[in-house]
Amino acid sequence: MRVGLLQLNPVICDFKGNCEKIVHAAQRAFENKADFCVAPELAVTGYPPDDLLLRADILEECEHSVKELASRTKNFGPLLIGTPWRAVPDSTQLYNAACLLVDGRIDKVFGKTLLPEYDVFYEKRYFASVQSPGVFELMGRKIGVTICEDVWNDPDFWGRTGDDDQPVRSLCAKGAQMIINLSASPFSVGKHRVIKAMLGSMSAKYSVDLLFCNQVGGFEDLVFSGRSMAFDAQGRLTASALEFAEDVLVVDTINSENNRLSVHDLSSSSEIWQALVLGTADYVRKSGFNNVLIGLSGGLDSSVTAAVAVQALGSGQVTGVLMPSPYSSPGSIDHSLDLSVNLEIKTHTLPISELMQAYDQILAPVFKGYQPDVTEENIQARIRANLLMAMSNKQGKMLLATGNKSEMAVGYSTIYGDMAGGLAVLADVAKTSVYTLARWLNKTRGKTIIPREIISKSPSAELRPGQMDRDTLPDYEVLDPILSLYVEKGSSFNEICALGYDPDLAQRIIYMVDKAEFKRAQAPPGIRITEKAFGRGRRMPLTAKCSHDRSAADG
Amino acid sequence: MRVGLLQLNPVICDFKGNCEKIVHAAQRAFENKADFCVAPELAVTGYPPDDLLLRADILEECEHSVKELASRTKNFGPLLIGTPWRAVPDSTQLYNAACLLVDGRIDKVFGKTLLPEYDVFYEKRYFASVQSPGVFELMGRKIGVTICEDVWNDPDFWGRTGDDDQPVRSLCAKGAQMIINLSASPFSVGKHRVIKAMLGSMSAKYSVDLLFCNQVGGFEDLVFSGRSMAFDAQGRLTASALEFAEDVLVVDTINSENNRLSVHDLSSSSEIWQALVLGTADYVRKSGFNNVLIGLSGGLDSSVTAAVAVQALGSGQVTGVLMPSPYSSPGSIDHSLDLSVNLEIKTHTLPISELMQAYDQILAPVFKGYQPDVTEENIQARIRANLLMAMSNKQGKMLLATGNKSEMAVGYSTIYGDMAGGLAVLADVAKTSVYTLARWLNKTRGKTIIPREIISKSPSAELRPGQMDRDTLPDYEVLDPILSLYVEKGSSFNEICALGYDPDLAQRIIYMVDKAEFKRAQAPPGIRITEKAFGRGRRMPLTAKCSHDRSAADG
Repeated sequence: MRVGLLQLNPVICDFKGNCEKIVHAAQRAFENKADFCVAPELAVTGYPPDDLLLRADILEECEHSVKELASRTKNFGPLLIGTPWRAVPDSTQLYNAACLLVDGRIDKVFGKTLLPEYDVFYEKRYFASVQSPGVFELMGRKIGVTICEDVWNDPDFWGRTGDDDQPVRSLCAKGAQMIINLSASPFSVGKHRVIKAMLGSMSAKYSVDLLFCNQVGGFEDLVFSGRSMAFDAQGRLTASALEFAEDVLVVDTINSENNRLSVHDLSSSSEIWQALVLGTADYVRKSGFNNVLIGLSGGLDSSVTAAVAVQALGSGQVTGVLMPSPYSSPGSIDHSLDLSVNLEIKTHTLPISELMQAYDQILAPVFKGYQPDVTEENIQARIRANLLMAMSNKQGKMLLATGNKSEMAVGYSTIYGDMAGGLAVLADVAKTSVYTLARWLNKTRGKTIIPREIISKSPSAELRPGQMDRDTLPDYEVLDPILSLYVEKGSSFNEICALGYDPDLAQRIIYMVDKAEFKRAQAPPGIRITEKAFGRGRRMPLTAKCSHDRSAADG
Repeated sequence: MRVGLLQLNPVICDFKGNCEKIVHAAQRAFENKADFCVAPELAVTGYPPDDLLLRADILEECEHSVKELASRTKNFGPLLIGTPWRAVPDSTQLYNAACLLVDGRIDKVFGKTLLPEYDVFYEKRYFASVQSPGVFELMGRKIGVTICEDVWNDPDFWGRTGDDDQPVRSLCAKGAQMIINLSASPFSVGKHRVIKAMLGSMSAKYSVDLLFCNQVGGFEDLVFSGRSMAFDAQGRLTASALEFAEDVLVVDTINSENNRLSVHDLSSSSEIWQALVLGTADYVRKSGFNNVLIGLSGGLDSSVTAAVAVQALGSGQVTGVLMPSPYSSPGSIDHSLDLSVNLEIKTHTLPISELMQAYDQILAPVFKGYQPDVTEENIQARIRANLLMAMSNKQGKMLLATGNKSEMAVGYSTIYGDMAGGLAVLADVAKTSVYTLARWLNKTRGKTIIPREIISKSPSAELRPGQMDRDTLPDYEVLDPILSLYVEKGSSFNEICALGYDPDLAQRIIYMVDKAEFKRAQAPPGIRITEKAFGRGRRMPLTAKCSHDRSAADG
């Protein structure tokens, strides 16, 4: 059997556009002799539609779109399409479903069994779960339908016991010889290796063909990497689609030797780079923008952000803005200009000294008797944000924020200042990873994109004379592993100390992270590349008083 | 039997402080001859602890705290305490539980049956549901334990059919003669009437005593109004606790004539006012601040925000900042000064004309060839935000944002400008309700708090000469009802038109609301007073393309 996997990049609730994509991709697949086609989980709306799923008119549009898809593809061959679907029209019982379209009508509807409610997923808010997954017959073969999470709980693979709900097992018990999985599985670094191993082990365990059709694209803070795959009944990978790009992959499940096996470059830096590029391109364009602005400080983060933006949108669409102050090093200008030459982007230079003086003068009567402190630093960051947002408003260009995850974690950033922007490109990339990424980029391109001085100099916000990040923060090599434990692994203070980290340092870092929740609550979306990003997958109270806060504050 | 309802205001995960409150309140109740005491849902952590519930150390602290509570109250009498509770220590199976403490030990643990996952609730993310609610015996009476949502699904009261899970029915079937409900039921205007009717109807229907013990206080964007109540087996209200304040209410279920019936002032304006005051006081103080700053524009919103802040924190803790521009009307100064006299708050005046000129000069080369537009207005709003945040940073005062719900809905506000602040006090109050509130306040106080000119003049942002809100927006009397339908009721364009509203107007308003999602995503928390606020209970995608957007954009 030849199955077309339609690895598409929809726009949330752009029903017309999404259906157009499905029809065109299906047409290509059937022209390429597919017997049957699959589109990803919720392909009709794109994933995740969030609270739009609570709107009756959106659900009506889903139903209307699926019917229209059936009618438009009636001469093609069967299609299995992911869509929200009400058990009964007008009912509030909604399924995360797959509709089987045959001969111009909706032949069968299958539902998702396991609804994830962890991390970035809130599916129980919207969907009811079906009791057991379903099977249909095509060309004499029984095909079992699973949706994303349904294949994520094989206790053998995860080394767990006691999982009752095993949709694949129950499908095989019903005689399924092939398992289809419609997915919208968000990217994180290294996850594709896990998916591949998990699906391979499952297809071998049950001796079934297993076809995984994944969404691709950037959806707000989430990126989906595509890389749809097919496994044979021995657990061997027999076909794979492009990474981080739309693709139509026709898989021959019988004669697999001619299947396409796209090469996936799985180095961490390559994955992160591609995710940031796709995430940026899609966020900017799906928001209705074509051009972006970036404040260039001569530092690493703004440089890497600019490089991502150029790759995502083209150098003609990226403008760098230099806003030197009296505390800016000469390098901050020179290195930014070097970068802009390397990236072939235009720049503007807007010195902020006069504005700083104007704020100082106006605030002098109010600030009488107070010593200079972080306030004066924040004023500079907010002057820059005002200039950048003015350019953004006037010229219709989206401002990109440049802060990295380490800064975001400890609150080493100015709210309404350097945190301002439509998208924070590096918000889930730890500072040490930004260094690695910059070096990887220069090496991969075979030429200097990020100037060497930018990589080699000590990081500084340059908001007061001689300021260095290390005056305020531990070295990033020390900071990042503790942040990874606390934020990404959810480790407690005791667990972190048990790994040998200095308790005072751990406590100080945890205190900084907890204290910065209010800033992150007003941050722009970032692009998730780790298993735990700030944003939709991590909802922390803003007025909590945890014990480690207290002891640290007291100490 | 005499039951003590401990209506407490915890701080999220302040285990020491919360337990201290429980012990002291229980002591008072037992001194007042209670036989038994009840603390609200999740009283040990406060509600909602959000993703702190995913941390093992937090769950250990819950267990430790409950054990300590048992030991500290062992000479008191039985206590029923809401807390997160793991079925088995170290298991990931967590219950939203009530622990019965008797003689210094944990005698029984009851779990919540129905876990809400709509609007502001995400309980399925954290909790497993128990199969059926539990009963215990005390002084020869069988007492059934329910937690919040467990009493919210009586099909008779709601006029629904087909609800299988009816915890109260199943408790009564088990012989319960009294139902206890531990709650953390978020406030919205008018909801208390519904709770009262619902609980009264339920106690009469099953002929049981029903005791409702509710959390009180401000928790980020949520306010809980307390107003714990007792109903007898005829459905009569026999006791009620204070509104919007901590209270210990001892209910005699046999001799109810001496029970305290606190008078609840249920006018909408009074409820809104009390919710805003409590929400502001708790957000500011639980964030570690005592003082606040407010930019006073001479307009209605900043005036009402200042009045709320004075009531919440005291006039000595509130500072008004006047930041006139060349476009400010003379009234903007005079009326603000009148207000500050009425409220007895100190003010500073920081004119922004020079800063505006400085920005204009710096941006002139970049803006050559562009016409003046909304950019110049946003620059002013962001200058003011920078000045206010500088004062906030320097003096350790929280900035309060002053925008109302109508503005927030249609995006008539400047991100990083007037939207800046730690808390947006009026973010869930429609402009027409702000007017009503101002008039109510002046009337209730019997003197002018909000100057009459502020109430009577036409609303204006004063960001360009002669600007009026009505130049950009429909009249608020026209705008607010459509916003209420679209945002609060979730009505579709077609449903709104079917009610007789002008389709062009409805489409324009819907387009503005959809287009402003990105601003609201970076807004400070507001105080929820309606059934549907922006914030935790409404999660909309930022890059969606809904059909009405498109048609409006095309049209």
